[in-house]
Amino acid sequence: MTIRVGLIGAGVMGGDHARILSTSVNGARLAAVSDADASRAAAIAGACGATAFPDADKLIADASVEAVIVASPDPTHKALVLGCLAAEKPVLCEKPLGVTTAECLEIIGAETALGRRLVQVGFMRRFDPGYAAMKGALDSGDLGRGLILHCVHRNQISASYSTSEGVIANSAVHEIDIARWMFGEEVARVTVIVPRQSSHAGMQDPQIILMHMAGGAVVDIEAYLNCQYGYDVRGELVCESGTAELVPPHGITLRRAGQEGFGHPEDWRPRFAEAYRIELQAWIDSVAGGSPAGASAWDGYAATAVAEAGVASLKTGTPADVRLAAKPALYD
Amino acid sequence: MTIRVGLIGAGVMGGDHARILSTSVNGARLAAVSDADASRAAAIAGACGATAFPDADKLIADASVEAVIVASPDPTHKALVLGCLAAEKPVLCEKPLGVTTAECLEIIGAETALGRRLVQVGFMRRFDPGYAAMKGALDSGDLGRGLILHCVHRNQISASYSTSEGVIANSAVHEIDIARWMFGEEVARVTVIVPRQSSHAGMQDPQIILMHMAGGAVVDIEAYLNCQYGYDVRGELVCESGTAELVPPHGITLRRAGQEGFGHPEDWRPRFAEAYRIELQAWIDSVAGGSPAGASAWDGYAATAVAEAGVASLKTGTPADVRLAAKPALYD
Amino acid sequence: MTIRVGLIGAGVMGGDHARILSTSVNGARLAAVSDADASRAAAIAGACGATAFPDADKLIADASVEAVIVASPDPTHKALVLGCLAAEKPVLCEKPLGVTTAECLEIIGAETALGRRLVQVGFMRRFDPGYAAMKGALDSGDLGRGLILHCVHRNQISASYSTSEGVIANSAVHEIDIARWMFGEEVARVTVIVPRQSSHAGMQDPQIILMHMAGGAVVDIEAYLNCQYGYDVRGELVCESGTAELVPPHGITLRRAGQEGFGHPEDWRPRFAEAYRIELQAWIDSVAGGSPAGASAWDGYAATAVAEAGVASLKTGTPADVRLAAKPALYD
Amino acid sequence: MTIRVGLIGAGVMGGDHARILSTSVNGARLAAVSDADASRAAAIAGACGATAFPDADKLIADASVEAVIVASPDPTHKALVLGCLAAEKPVLCEKPLGVTTAECLEIIGAETALGRRLVQVGFMRRFDPGYAAMKGALDSGDLGRGLILHCVHRNQISASYSTSEGVIANSAVHEIDIARWMFGEEVARVTVIVPRQSSHAGMQDPQIILMHMAGGAVVDIEAYLNCQYGYDVRGELVCESGTAELVPPHGITLRRAGQEGFGHPEDWRPRFAEAYRIELQAWIDSVAGGSPAGASAWDGYAATAVAEAGVASLKTGTPADVRLAAKPALYD
Repeated sequence: MTIRVGLIGAGVMGGDHARILSTSVNGARLAAVSDADASRAAAIAGACGATAFPDADKLIADASVEAVIVASPDPTHKALVLGCLAAEKPVLCEKPLGVTTAECLEIIGAETALGRRLVQVGFMRRFDPGYAAMKGALDSGDLGRGLILHCVHRNQISASYSTSEGVIANSAVHEIDIARWMFGEEVARVTVIVPRQSSHAGMQDPQIILMHMAGGAVVDIEAYLNCQYGYDVRGELVCESGTAELVPPHGITLRRAGQEGFGHPEDWRPRFAEAYRIELQAWIDSVAGGSPAGASAWDGYAATAVAEAGVASLKTGTPADVRLAAKPALYD
Repeated sequence: MTIRVGLIGAGVMGGDHARILSTSVNGARLAAVSDADASRAAAIAGACGATAFPDADKLIADASVEAVIVASPDPTHKALVLGCLAAEKPVLCEKPLGVTTAECLEIIGAETALGRRLVQVGFMRRFDPGYAAMKGALDSGDLGRGLILHCVHRNQISASYSTSEGVIANSAVHEIDIARWMFGEEVARVTVIVPRQSSHAGMQDPQIILMHMAGGAVVDIEAYLNCQYGYDVRGELVCESGTAELVPPHGITLRRAGQEGFGHPEDWRPRFAEAYRIELQAWIDSVAGGSPAGASAWDGYAATAVAEAGVASLKTGTPADVRLAAKPALYD
Repeated sequence: MTIRVGLIGAGVMGGDHARILSTSVNGARLAAVSDADASRAAAIAGACGATAFPDADKLIADASVEAVIVASPDPTHKALVLGCLAAEKPVLCEKPLGVTTAECLEIIGAETALGRRLVQVGFMRRFDPGYAAMKGALDSGDLGRGLILHCVHRNQISASYSTSEGVIANSAVHEIDIARWMFGEEVARVTVIVPRQSSHAGMQDPQIILMHMAGGAVVDIEAYLNCQYGYDVRGELVCESGTAELVPPHGITLRRAGQEGFGHPEDWRPRFAEAYRIELQAWIDSVAGGSPAGASAWDGYAATAVAEAGVASLKTGTPADVRLAAKPALYD
Repeated sequence: MTIRVGLIGAGVMGGDHARILSTSVNGARLAAVSDADASRAAAIAGACGATAFPDADKLIADASVEAVIVASPDPTHKALVLGCLAAEKPVLCEKPLGVTTAECLEIIGAETALGRRLVQVGFMRRFDPGYAAMKGALDSGDLGRGLILHCVHRNQISASYSTSEGVIANSAVHEIDIARWMFGEEVARVTVIVPRQSSHAGMQDPQIILMHMAGGAVVDIEAYLNCQYGYDVRGELVCESGTAELVPPHGITLRRAGQEGFGHPEDWRPRFAEAYRIELQAWIDSVAGGSPAGASAWDGYAATAVAEAGVASLKTGTPADVRLAAKPALYD
C-alpha cells in the first residue's frame, strides 16, 4: 500500500516535499524526480532512492509513478496538471494552479470531463494546526457567526523578482484561500489600499487587501513583504461571541541580553513545517483512500480569480467585483 | 501650591475624576462640585470635602475654583468651556469638546482671541503607558517611519442609546485622536466598511474605519461595541523596520478549570485607570506650571471633524475627505 | 525498506503507538499485536491490518516481526525486553525499563553481553520540540553553562492507583530523565520536600523533588498530580547568561466570556503528541539505519535508580545519595 | 491636610521617594531632607522646595516635620526609627528595619511601650498590583488553599559590595516578606541550596532558598544576582484548584531584528515603580487617617529573623529553624 510519488520540480519547494515525503510521511515513497536542471533532479533522486527522469511528461506517463507533485515554475503548472489528468493520476500542484483564471478553467474543464477529482492545490495553511484550531472554534458554534477575519502576512525581505501585483497574487493569495475556506463562501469584492511605501521596498509594499465575502463578512489582509524582522503570519477571527487568534508556534521563550521573547524565522518553511507534513500525509491518504482532501481545482481557480480582482483594484484604486464562472457540481 | 478644582458633572466619569483627584493626584484638591442632579453633587462633595454648587456657572465664577473639569453631558460641553475661557480658568473637558465641528470652532475662536491655551480635551489614552511606549518606540527612530496602525476597540455590550453613528463618534473617536497624535499629522480621508452585523447588536456593529493620514500612513480601526467577552483595546504600529503592539495590562495569569489566561474588564475604566490618573496629574501640573499638556482644543476639533467624515462615509458607503479649517498659530 | 513492528500491550499507550505508527510514521507498518486481553489485541490488529498474537513471546519470535514496542504493564517489561534481546530484535520499551534497578541491571547485563544496543526506553520528552529547543539553546553555548533547571509536572487528577511513591517513580521520572539528558551528567543526590497535601489528593501531593547533579547544577521539580486545571508541563533552564523556558504549545488564543487564553488538555497525550510521533520516527529510523536514538537501557536504569533514591528520601525526610553501578562502555 | 514629610537619606532610594512624594502622591509634601552628604540633601531639598537639615536628629525633632522616611544606610536604621518613636512621629523605614534581630526587637520594645504603631517597613512589593492580584486570588477562595509559592528574583549584575549572605539578607528578604504576607503565617524552617556558581559571580550565586511555612506550605526562591539579562521578578502561587502567576508589566511587545518580545529593566525601580507610588500613598493615607498600612515592625523583625536562619543554613548546609520572640498584641 505504499504510494509511489513522482516529483516535478527539484527547487526549494520540491526539495522540501521530497525530504518530507521520504522521512516523515506514512504510506508513500519518492519514486521519480524530474527538473529542467537534470543535476538537481539527480541529486534529490539519489538522496531518496528515486529515479531521475529527463522529462516531466515521461515521468507522468511512467508506470512506476502513481501520483504526482508539481513544484515546477508557475507557468508550467497548467500543462503538467492537464498531463496528469490525461494520465488519470492524482496530482498535488503547488499554488497557483494556473497563472490566469483562463488556465485554471481549462483544468477545471478537463477534470469535470473526467468526472472525478484528481487535483489538489498546495494551499498548505489549511493543514496548519493553528488555522485548523481556528476553524474548529468557528465550526463548533461556540463563538457564533464569524464577522471579520484580520490577517497579517509578513516576509522579512521580498525576492528580487517581486512586484506590487505579486504582493497580492503570490503572497496574499494564501489568505484569499484561507478566507474562502474559513467562511465556506466566495469572495464578492476586493479593495486594495496602499499606505505609503516602506523605504526598504522597491514596489508598493505594504498593502492592505480588503475582501467582502458573499455572506457579508469582511477580511482585511496586511501583506508586507519587507517587514525586516522575519517571517510572521498572524490572524484573528472576530465572531459574534468571541475571537480566536493564531499564536506563532515557538517551543521556548528566551531571556537574554535585556530581552524576553522568541525568534521569527527568515522564511515561511519553519513556520509551516507542520502544515506541509500534514498536507502531504493527507494527500497520500486521499490518494490511497480515494476521497479528496485540501483545496480543489475550483479553490485554485477561485483564489486566482480573487487575486486578479485584487490586482485590478490595485491599478484602479477602486473596489473590484469578483465574477466567477458557474461552479461544476463536481466541486460541491 | 494646591490647585483647587471644580467639577461639573457628577456621573460615572465625574465621580471617577473626583475620586482620583482626591486620592491619587499630587498638588490638587476637589473644591467644588455641581450637577443637574443636586444630590449626586452633594454626595461627591461630601465625600471629598468639597462644596456643592447648584449651578455650573456659579461654580466656574467662584473664587474658590482655580481650574475646572467638565464631565457633564456632551451637549453642555461647549457652553461650559466657553464659560471657563470667559473666566480665564483652565479647563479639562471630557471628550467630545463639542458635538459638532461648529461648536468646536466656536471654542477655538474664543481661545484664540484670548491668546493662550486653557483648554485640555480628555483623550486620556495619550497618557496610557502602553500607547506612550508605542509612541516612544516610534519617536526613537529605531523602527523607521510608521506605515500602518492597526486598532481594535471592543466593548462588551453597547449602551442602550448607542447608534451606528456613535460607533464612530463616541467610540472610535479615541483611535482617531491616537492616530493623529501618533503620526503627528492630520487625517485626510475616512472610509467606513460594514461587515455583516452581529446578531447581538441592534445597529451596524462591528465597523471597520479606514483612515488615510495626510502623510500617507493608513490606520484601520475595528470598532465593535458588542463583542460580548469584555472591554478590550489593542493596537499594532507597523513600521519600516519592525512593529510595536499594545499588551493589555494584567498583573497575573490564572490557571484554573482547564484554562490559562487572564480576564478582561466589563468596561473601560480598569483598562485605562493608569491613563486617567496620569492625565489628571499632567493636567494639574500644567495648570500649576503654565505649559499645556495633552490634547488641545484643536485636537478636539480635528477629532470631531474626522468623526463627522466617518459618519458621512458610513451613510454614503464611499470615502469621505476631511476638510479642516485653517489652524491658528496658537496650536503649533 | 518498511520495518515490520510488533506491539505488545494494546492499552491506551499501545493503542496510541499503533495509530501513530500506522498513520504518521515513515518506513514502518504494524505487523503484529498481542495483549493479555485478546479482544483488545484483535481490535487494534484489525484496524491496522496486523496479525493478533495470543502470546507475547510468540510475537517476539515470529519472523514477521522485525522490531518490538513494549507497552504492557510495568512488571512485564523486564522479561519482554530480555526476550527481544535474546531474539536480537530492536525494542522500544515504554518507561520504566524495569520496576527496580535490579531488573534494569539484568537488561544491561544482557545487552552488554550481546555487545550492541537494541533497547530504546520511551522517554518521549527528549523528542518534544520545546525540550529540544531548550537543549539546543544550552548546547549552542549562547547562554553559558546551565546552573538550575526548574520543572513543573502537573496532572489534572491522579489515577485511582497512584501512590506517594508513584509521584516520583511514575511521574517525576520524566523530569529525572530530562535532567540527565539536558546536563549530560548523572544525578548525585535527591531530596524530597513535602508541602501540605492538597485536599483533592489521597496521598502526599504535591511534592518538590530536588536533585543535585554530579557537576553541581540543581534541578527542582514540582510534581503535582491533582492540580485540577489540566495537564501542564513547564520548565525553565537557568544559565550563566540567560534562561530558556518551555512554552506550552497552543495553536490559538481564545477570547470569550470575559477571558483571554488557551486550554490545557486533560491528559499528557495532546501535550506530547508531536514528541511521540518524532520518537517513533527516530526509533524506526534507528532500526532501519542501525544507530541508536533516544534513551538507552543505561538511561532507563539511571532514571529508576534516581527514582529509588527519591522514594528513600520521601520516606526518611533526608537527602539520599544516588549510587550507580559502573557504566559499561557500550553506553558511552 | 497636607502631611509634611522629612526624608533622611538622599541616595538613590531616598531621591526616588522624594521625587514620587513631590510629583505623584496626594496629600503630602517634602518638607525636610538630611543626608550625611550635605550637598546631596541640598540638591533634593532645592528641587522639591524643602529645607535641608545638617542633622537627622534635628530633622526628626523639627516641628515642620510630621512624618519621616528613613532611607539612609542600613546600620543607621535602628537609631533613627527609635528617634522617630521617641518623637512620636510616624516613620516609613526602608528595609531592613534593623541589621540584626536584636536591633529589630529593640524597636519593637519601644513601639510596644508606646502602645501604638508608628513604624512601617518599606516592603513595597505588598503594594505591587501583580502581587496584590495574586493575594486577591488566594483570598477569594476560588483557588483553594495555597500549597507552594515559587519565586524568582534576578538582578542583572550584583553590586560590588554584595556577598553570599547578602543574597539572602538583602535580596531574598523581599520574598521572605511576601511569603509571610501571602500565607498569613510565619516561616518555620529555612534551607539554602547552592547550585554551582555562575562564572559571572564572585560569590555563591545563584542560591535556592526553601522555606517551610508554619502551616505546611512550601516556598522556593531562586535568588540570582548576576543573571546578566536584566532585573526580573517572577512568582507562581500553586493552590489546590489552580495557580496564579505574576506577569512582568510591559506596555508593548516589540517585533524587531528577528525577535518578538519585550525588555527587562536594568534595576528594580521600573519594575516596582507602581508599587513604590502606591506604598507611599498608602503610608501618607495611614499617617493622615491613623490606621497603619503595609509591613509593621513585627514584619520587619520576622523577615530579619528568617534571613538570619537562611544565612545559618547557607553556612552549615543544613536546615535552620526560625525561632521568633513572643509576638506582642500590638501586632495582631
